[in-house]
Amino acid sequence: MKKVVLIPDSFKGNMESLEVCNIMESALKKHFPNIEIVKIPVADGGEGTVDSFLFAMGGNKKYLEVTGPNFDKINAFYGQINQNTAVIEMSAVAGLPITKCKNPSLTTTFGVGELILDAIKNGATKIVIGLGGSSTNDCGVGCFCALGAKFYNSTGEFVPTGATLSTITKIDITKLKQNTRGVQFVTMCDIDNPLYGKNGASYVFASQKGADTNMVKFLDSELVAFSKIVQRELGFLDTNFSGAGSAGGMGYGMKAFLGSTIQMGIDTVLDIVDFDKISSDADLILSGEGKFDNQSLSGKVVIGVAKHAKMLNVPLIAVVGDIGDNIDLCYDMGVTAVYSINRVAKDFSKVKARSKQDLYLTVDTIARTLML
Amino acid sequence: MKKVVLIPDSFKGNMESLEVCNIMESALKKHFPNIEIVKIPVADGGEGTVDSFLFAMGGNKKYLEVTGPNFDKINAFYGQINQNTAVIEMSAVAGLPITKCKNPSLTTTFGVGELILDAIKNGATKIVIGLGGSSTNDCGVGCFCALGAKFYNSTGEFVPTGATLSTITKIDITKLKQNTRGVQFVTMCDIDNPLYGKNGASYVFASQKGADTNMVKFLDSELVAFSKIVQRELGFLDTNFSGAGSAGGMGYGMKAFLGSTIQMGIDTVLDIVDFDKISSDADLILSGEGKFDNQSLSGKVVIGVAKHAKMLNVPLIAVVGDIGDNIDLCYDMGVTAVYSINRVAKDFSKVKARSKQDLYLTVDTIARTLML
Repeated sequence: MKKVVLIPDSFKGNMESLEVCNIMESALKKHFPNIEIVKIPVADGGEGTVDSFLFAMGGNKKYLEVTGPNFDKINAFYGQINQNTAVIEMSAVAGLPITKCKNPSLTTTFGVGELILDAIKNGATKIVIGLGGSSTNDCGVGCFCALGAKFYNSTGEFVPTGATLSTITKIDITKLKQNTRGVQFVTMCDIDNPLYGKNGASYVFASQKGADTNMVKFLDSELVAFSKIVQRELGFLDTNFSGAGSAGGMGYGMKAFLGSTIQMGIDTVLDIVDFDKISSDADLILSGEGKFDNQSLSGKVVIGVAKHAKMLNVPLIAVVGDIGDNIDLCYDMGVTAVYSINRVAKDFSKVKARSKQDLYLTVDTIARTLML
Repeated sequence: MKKVVLIPDSFKGNMESLEVCNIMESALKKHFPNIEIVKIPVADGGEGTVDSFLFAMGGNKKYLEVTGPNFDKINAFYGQINQNTAVIEMSAVAGLPITKCKNPSLTTTFGVGELILDAIKNGATKIVIGLGGSSTNDCGVGCFCALGAKFYNSTGEFVPTGATLSTITKIDITKLKQNTRGVQFVTMCDIDNPLYGKNGASYVFASQKGADTNMVKFLDSELVAFSKIVQRELGFLDTNFSGAGSAGGMGYGMKAFLGSTIQMGIDTVLDIVDFDKISSDADLILSGEGKFDNQSLSGKVVIGVAKHAKMLNVPLIAVVGDIGDNIDLCYDMGVTAVYSINRVAKDFSKVKARSKQDLYLTVDTIARTLML
């Protein structure tokens, strides 16, 4: 073995994907000291997304002062992973942990737009926006204001928030279009909630952002109203698509205002890091996730990678927490073998603390077997 | 891969070694349909020992009427695994399940001797006796009577049992020597209890054979007395060796009266099946046991096999239930890799029922990896 690509998801609530990469690497290096190892920790758009891309691709983490979620001044960052591509994670600029006053009717995504503008100013023509962990419910209108869009109500121009979306009477995106001309947007989003309704942004996520029952209902009605205004003003008809409800309607806004594609994290990662090129001469790909089951067969990280592995004719071994039943289909989808890190028959609460060690020992076992 | 040798222990209280062999075989055959598979289920001397040897070696299971543990007539059996070698399991002729009146002061091993005599009559020159599961505490004197030994008390010749060992005044083994001349005895014994004392045959095992507290104490004193009589009458000094206390002192008796070697099950199996010859041209050896831990490093089945695998330079993979901590020394002892069958983080009580499936799937994973 000369080259191995490591591209695991996080083990949710247990190990970050970068941590998983490092553990896998050290177990492999023990047996194959001269092997070339490429580490691609998978980001899902949430906290850590910028670091993951920087880790995989190299680049620069640029810090700058922008508008925070409470219209305060905060220090945020984005990643310049090469001359043309920037990665922004919403949680770093409009995330719950950095929101002093948690009230999704009042918080703004304005800072996201400022980061985008700075990235464009510095040459980015492809901008990846990671959704997840936001404290907002403004459909991204704050962000679009920062990019040059103008929103008017009965008394004049203003910056709408979650509570005032329905008061918008007119939208002008001429300046926004100028500022973002020639820039491609990719939005990373691993959830499939629609914009509004019982499964929408407000009903599912607003309470954890600080809304009470009445506010949840109110915010949902604002989203419905906003989608009608956008329909009228921009001619954008696709209101309630899957993923539209992520990050307080940011998924919806990114598509409506910036023509962004909405992608799963793994697809974005495979694309941005040029996975197929990196892996074409690999002897083995190691992936993994916290639980590998039936659901994993429709698009989670391991299978997302496996499809490419199959095409490239490179074997892929998955190292996971639990293995669910009836996963045999995965072997037709490009997975060579699936290993559980469980070494003792004990409940998760008892073995969670030893997960890192068990992951190491499992990759150690795989390496020993591959040496045969 | 052209040839694989399967030599697992049982997964105690869960899967018999033969069952483990069959599951391993079916998972391997799925991926390597034309492979030659040699199955050697490891016997420990207890119930199933004869079947294990017959399964591994072929041969004949001979049934005959002999004296049962209550001096009744029972149908017992032994295995003729080739022209010269017979295998007897004590549990089939003096075992607890076939003992109607459970009283270790009165039960006898007489039938064991009758089976031995029949085996010798039929040409056996090597006799393997598996200990384990007995209902007796007679140090094998019943067996030795059947083989021609004469025991006397103050009133004349008699067949002693656990309660009357101390009344023996004289022992004559002339006839026994004649009947067993040229025959080699091997006693299989996987426990290391001494003959008497707090860790001895009576204190540790007699209560499960039906003795109450007083009887346990009494039987222990009989064992002490007997060892002194044997010392005086036969000049046999090695009274309290490791394993002497197995099967109600049968381990002791086999060595004292028949010069038998006392061996671990795995060593006996490796010897009798001619493991080194069978495995010298194998591409892989699969072993396994219910729990692989620190203790396993000193002589349980996997390590017993591994030492031979190392000498033969054939890789050995262990498939086990739980893997304990700090087992890395095993890799120097001939083990290539250790796989746990655990696939979900749940307590054993919850996953026991799926052990067979999990074993199959684990060997399936190994096979998929080996195909790389």
